[in-house]
Amino acid sequence: MYDLAEFVIRAAQLIKPDQVEKMIDTLENFYKNNRNGKVLVMGAGRSGLVGRAFAMRLLHLGYNAYVLGETIVPAIGKNDLAIAISGSGRTRLILTAAEAAKEAKATLIAVTSYADSPIGKIADIVVEVPGRTKYSQFEDYFARQILGITEPLAPLGTLFEDTTQMFLDGVVAELMLRLKKTEEDLRQIHANIEL
Amino acid sequence: MYDLAEFVIRAAQLIKPDQVEKMIDTLENFYKNNRNGKVLVMGAGRSGLVGRAFAMRLLHLGYNAYVLGETIVPAIGKNDLAIAISGSGRTRLILTAAEAAKEAKATLIAVTSYADSPIGKIADIVVEVPGRTKYSQFEDYFARQILGITEPLAPLGTLFEDTTQMFLDGVVAELMLRLKKTEEDLRQIHANIEL
Amino acid sequence: MYDLAEFVIRAAQLIKPDQVEKMIDTLENFYKNNRNGKVLVMGAGRSGLVGRAFAMRLLHLGYNAYVLGETIVPAIGKNDLAIAISGSGRTRLILTAAEAAKEAKATLIAVTSYADSPIGKIADIVVEVPGRTKYSQFEDYFARQILGITEPLAPLGTLFEDTTQMFLDGVVAELMLRLKKTEEDLRQIHANIEL
Amino acid sequence: MYDLAEFVIRAAQLIKPDQVEKMIDTLENFYKNNRNGKVLVMGAGRSGLVGRAFAMRLLHLGYNAYVLGETIVPAIGKNDLAIAISGSGRTRLILTAAEAAKEAKATLIAVTSYADSPIGKIADIVVEVPGRTKYSQFEDYFARQILGITEPLAPLGTLFEDTTQMFLDGVVAELMLRLKKTEEDLRQIHANIEL
Repeated sequence: MYDLAEFVIRAAQLIKPDQVEKMIDTLENFYKNNRNGKVLVMGAGRSGLVGRAFAMRLLHLGYNAYVLGETIVPAIGKNDLAIAISGSGRTRLILTAAEAAKEAKATLIAVTSYADSPIGKIADIVVEVPGRTKYSQFEDYFARQILGITEPLAPLGTLFEDTTQMFLDGVVAELMLRLKKTEEDLRQIHANIEL
Repeated sequence: MYDLAEFVIRAAQLIKPDQVEKMIDTLENFYKNNRNGKVLVMGAGRSGLVGRAFAMRLLHLGYNAYVLGETIVPAIGKNDLAIAISGSGRTRLILTAAEAAKEAKATLIAVTSYADSPIGKIADIVVEVPGRTKYSQFEDYFARQILGITEPLAPLGTLFEDTTQMFLDGVVAELMLRLKKTEEDLRQIHANIEL
Repeated sequence: MYDLAEFVIRAAQLIKPDQVEKMIDTLENFYKNNRNGKVLVMGAGRSGLVGRAFAMRLLHLGYNAYVLGETIVPAIGKNDLAIAISGSGRTRLILTAAEAAKEAKATLIAVTSYADSPIGKIADIVVEVPGRTKYSQFEDYFARQILGITEPLAPLGTLFEDTTQMFLDGVVAELMLRLKKTEEDLRQIHANIEL
Repeated sequence: MYDLAEFVIRAAQLIKPDQVEKMIDTLENFYKNNRNGKVLVMGAGRSGLVGRAFAMRLLHLGYNAYVLGETIVPAIGKNDLAIAISGSGRTRLILTAAEAAKEAKATLIAVTSYADSPIGKIADIVVEVPGRTKYSQFEDYFARQILGITEPLAPLGTLFEDTTQMFLDGVVAELMLRLKKTEEDLRQIHANIEL
């Protein structure tokens, strides 16, 4: 648990401020100037769960947020935002969905470890979040040597997923400040009947 | 398959028009006079799936529809609608959720085989949809003898679920007429990226 | 509701017995000879909900059933079965998933209105279930004239979805007979804590 | 993001080793001596998402893991394990589900900030994970003063959720060691078609 948290701290130092700025500016402007706009969050497996946790907070912040794969998903178009979360940037169904989002003319934000991956390449905005993935031996070595965490401590996409979860919760904190939302504002929207 | 469809036709004859009228009037008025109101659909197991299919069409019709158990569920209150689907009217988690909906002062519609069940009793509007359930030996006999279908053809809640699915799709057809919605209107909202 | 149920009865007459036989034989043999085999059910939107309702009954029958898009989905391979449900046979994410299933060497069953659709073509077994879909003007005309149901009564994929739901519940009834399962057997597996 | 990760590190120091030991021993013995046993993970909202992320890894480790609220959930009984995740220990639907799990005679593990909460009290094993929750003013003060994090940085249950996510990923790492599982073992089970 310590190792994971310390990895997150080291990873935070590697996240590029200008990429984050672009993502948060986009979300801030979207909220202020496009109140009917929709945000569709897309991710597979545990990245999808991280995406859901973020989508839920976007809802609490007052966004019209949706999650790919749920029952309640409207059409999206050119005034909408799609956020694809994929460590490798090449998760097949998410790539298909990201391509469809681009064809629908939505703005696409990718959160991925690889800006030059298929999903990264078609995105309008990319935020690179470090993590180990199966995609690249070199990057694996990088994660292992530079970031100092070894495989059995965090199998498969764990590092990307946990780092992204904390990163996106940081984005939520920043959006609260920019949109002048208090915890009480969020609580007002938070489900009162919930599973 | 024939037997199931014929059961649905016989069951349709047993559904009480005044109950249906109340449900559809409520949905019609809700749409026309309460455009910010939310509809939360609640059901467990296969009844929950039937509820999701209905919630999706409510979304396509222009309602702010949500499904208990999904990520994107806002708070509901006195201007909102909760629809509980439970054959027995006593599914535990749905009863808990229905009670919470009443405490939040939402209007509660119950779709159930048993108006005098715990969920039926606390609902503001009940629509009785026939089906076999484990709840009552007598009702079982009723389903078997009067409706003429026997157990191995439709195990557990199958009859209630399939009948309710067709009933709710009938409600959708009626709402399309009353709200003057065309198929093209629904298609505009229908997800264009979907799983 | 009557019109929908009557459509289902007419549609049932159009389903090809040899296609159904192949599907049920496959499921029967799979259960009897491949107890560790997995069945992955895949569908988008309301077809996905119909798939979930079927997957739940497969679980109750004793299969290792899973649903694409849920948390608990294992890898599938050459001894496994994938069942794709798509009215048009060209739902994008389901086509992507069906292709992946074929690459993994799983046996692919398609339930679709169009045997010659992309998903129909790559499937090992196809069951054609009639329904109206956006895919083809001709087929639309067919549904309207021959099957006698018009658009506002059953928007978008409703006819395919409801017919498939009843068809698959018919498959469950037949499997109960072939696998000598009683309702009580199913109830033993049915969730006792459920949402 | 730094603040959140540092909170997790401070919170890790407050987690009681004997509680963790009991939970991991139970999971280890369960795996070794009860290969047909089922693990049902239960949580609402973002705690539910954290639970799903853990359930997915339990599946990868070789457990028969399930998630409350999904389609594929079998009955559980006296040889099974239920894991309830609730910061406050009083989330209504999770309390209802936890009570049902106890009635079914399953072993109940609670992961909560409050051992003396309703869910904590009926659990066989409790692991206390620190976090801020709405439940208690005093505990709020505790989180704020001792743990040094203030509200707008981590609204609602964020601290509990993120800490629990990292804690449970730590449990996965320990289980990999005890069950002698490599990342490759996990990858073999990880879904190859995924959303």
